[in-house]
Amino acid sequence: MSAAQPTVVIVGAGFGGLRAARALRRAAVNVVLLDRHNYHLFQPLLYQVATAGLEPEQIARPVRAIVRGQDNFEFRMVEVTGLDPTGKRVVTDNGPVAYDYLILAVGGETNYFGLEGIARRGFGLKDIPDALAIRNHVLRRFENAMLEPDPERRRAELTFVVVGGGPTGVEMAGALSELIRLVLVKDYPRLNVKDVRILLLEATDRLLGGMPARLGEAAAETLWRKKVEVRFGAAVEDYDGERVRLKGGEVIPARTLIWAAGARAVSLTGRLGLPTGRQGRIGVAPTLQVGGHPEIYVIGDAAYLEADGQPLPMMAPVALQMAETAAANVTRQLHGELPQAFRYRDPGSLATIGRNAAVAYIRGIGFKGFPAWVVWLIVHLIQLIGFRNKLFVLLNWAWDYFFYERAARLITK
Amino acid sequence: MSAAQPTVVIVGAGFGGLRAARALRRAAVNVVLLDRHNYHLFQPLLYQVATAGLEPEQIARPVRAIVRGQDNFEFRMVEVTGLDPTGKRVVTDNGPVAYDYLILAVGGETNYFGLEGIARRGFGLKDIPDALAIRNHVLRRFENAMLEPDPERRRAELTFVVVGGGPTGVEMAGALSELIRLVLVKDYPRLNVKDVRILLLEATDRLLGGMPARLGEAAAETLWRKKVEVRFGAAVEDYDGERVRLKGGEVIPARTLIWAAGARAVSLTGRLGLPTGRQGRIGVAPTLQVGGHPEIYVIGDAAYLEADGQPLPMMAPVALQMAETAAANVTRQLHGELPQAFRYRDPGSLATIGRNAAVAYIRGIGFKGFPAWVVWLIVHLIQLIGFRNKLFVLLNWAWDYFFYERAARLITK
Repeated sequence: MSAAQPTVVIVGAGFGGLRAARALRRAAVNVVLLDRHNYHLFQPLLYQVATAGLEPEQIARPVRAIVRGQDNFEFRMVEVTGLDPTGKRVVTDNGPVAYDYLILAVGGETNYFGLEGIARRGFGLKDIPDALAIRNHVLRRFENAMLEPDPERRRAELTFVVVGGGPTGVEMAGALSELIRLVLVKDYPRLNVKDVRILLLEATDRLLGGMPARLGEAAAETLWRKKVEVRFGAAVEDYDGERVRLKGGEVIPARTLIWAAGARAVSLTGRLGLPTGRQGRIGVAPTLQVGGHPEIYVIGDAAYLEADGQPLPMMAPVALQMAETAAANVTRQLHGELPQAFRYRDPGSLATIGRNAAVAYIRGIGFKGFPAWVVWLIVHLIQLIGFRNKLFVLLNWAWDYFFYERAARLITK
Repeated sequence: MSAAQPTVVIVGAGFGGLRAARALRRAAVNVVLLDRHNYHLFQPLLYQVATAGLEPEQIARPVRAIVRGQDNFEFRMVEVTGLDPTGKRVVTDNGPVAYDYLILAVGGETNYFGLEGIARRGFGLKDIPDALAIRNHVLRRFENAMLEPDPERRRAELTFVVVGGGPTGVEMAGALSELIRLVLVKDYPRLNVKDVRILLLEATDRLLGGMPARLGEAAAETLWRKKVEVRFGAAVEDYDGERVRLKGGEVIPARTLIWAAGARAVSLTGRLGLPTGRQGRIGVAPTLQVGGHPEIYVIGDAAYLEADGQPLPMMAPVALQMAETAAANVTRQLHGELPQAFRYRDPGSLATIGRNAAVAYIRGIGFKGFPAWVVWLIVHLIQLIGFRNKLFVLLNWAWDYFFYERAARLITK
């Protein structure tokens, strides 16, 4: 760190923030990364923590460990609470942090679309506490079902509703089915498996909207084989912790509702004094700069930018590519050059449904089944940060695959 | 399970309760095991969870997974709140549970000896939440120290006081020193290691009171080499979260106090209507039965029994051996035979201080250093339940040993 160099403050240690910090490692700047957690989380595998397959420590890594050895880097574990764009200072719970350039990579959160009951009694899946809450809740349902004499109430204990037919909902429903039907049945020999229901509710008429229709069909087919009731045109209206109410009046008694039906930028974006639009995202120019503030960049889930008339999706690849562009543009500004426009290159998408089953759509080619599953495994192992995490996740997967097990079946709260 | 067979209710899935359940697997009884957690915890390695070396899932295992396949066994996740010895029923938060024979293996908790300030602001180390609380707190101290401009306050953030020179205190102080001096120094290049203090306070004039004096000396020597300030004759009087006050007036500014200076039976023992004595333990006959209730056995930390004029220690080997005796005595009673008296065979004791360093006292032979450390490793791996846990713990240890790392450095709260 050098006092003479300009300071680039990055807010958020998710995919975007971390990539931006590393992309600036050779730039003549001081990089200060702020996050309220001390770790980077590999969100794509969070549903496996929620379904007792992985331990939280295996898909997260301390920021300081990742960025060890980068001389121009400093991490501060603080919570950002506001922004003073005129004074060029980020406001935190530990006082202000001055910047010359700012990269906001504050990420997304679950979007309940104002449905209060669901926000309060349903489960989102965005962070480690979310995942552990689902794990504890689901496992607890089985313990409670064993103690429940009333058959109606027991069935409600064992009914699990997943809302949203995107990748998160599909992966969650598939993993939940395998946890219950391959593993928990061994733990609960007195359990009547016919009492167990898993529902995947999708408001439109197809799963995996971002992929070709036939892959969505294949995913639905595979979920049915795993005894997941896939329901289309099913829009949830309310949930009181006991009963899910759908538009149209249908009522499903269920003690568990997992909400994977929407994302929005974190609510912090509304408190920064910058103009926000759809999903609470901050509108940016094609260069990822905020209008009127060429020194402020927004990337990832928090940024609103359209490509081909569509808003860019709130996904890791977008955040990673935006991070490269933002870091490059900051460097260009330092050299007196003009920032360049962001161009998104879609790397394709993947969703796994369980053992040997996945769908993939890469470079215009869609495939499914075992080949897609192998690609899914490899891609996720490669992307996971840290060799130790890769090794332990691979070992866990191998063990679970061969022994039909899940290691992390503890109820810790 | 058979309705015609007598029911043995076991309370507690610790070392004693679990061993008793398994010892009764071929007896003509229904075994009902009650615990408020769904897992068995391997407490001897809990300090490694507290010092970021192991993940909680690696030293715990679901009770249902352990006892899978035992036909006469049933587990219920309930909290026991009382006892009706006349009606032969255990009172739980899910209603009463009737028994013909009862084995109380309810375990121990931290004994603060009425020191309110320490109970409130210090940390005990008896369960997973305790260990995670210490891990989060210790790691958070380093993050805070990085943000703290005042040198006095920064030193207090980095002062860690461990109270109690028994095996838990010794292992905790050693592991804390290695976490900080071998691992965290790499994460915090701006940290001045001279600001870090670790103190081990012992009220008597020796460590590891259960072992020969020369092994206690060796442990103290090794801790000194690891820069732990070992203080004898140091009795803690009060702690307000900022300052530790010793008898005699000495005051040590420290934001962390870990209390490993005492154990007692869980407070539940006082609410069972059975006579309790020292450390809240329930007095038992040499057969482990409660006076006036030949159908009630108490084992492990909750049982008070003397051998050679000394109360038996609150340690896993005692609980395990008592479980065998209690199970055998229940079987004898079923056959109309007389219960036999418990005889404790001391298997020796072990304490590790860190890399290549431990002390051991087995069958009257004391040894230390690398050989004791290897014995410690092997004994703990063997005792850990479940091959998967053994494998993952071994891999973690190997990785940390060779790379000077700790995997679980996440602040999760």
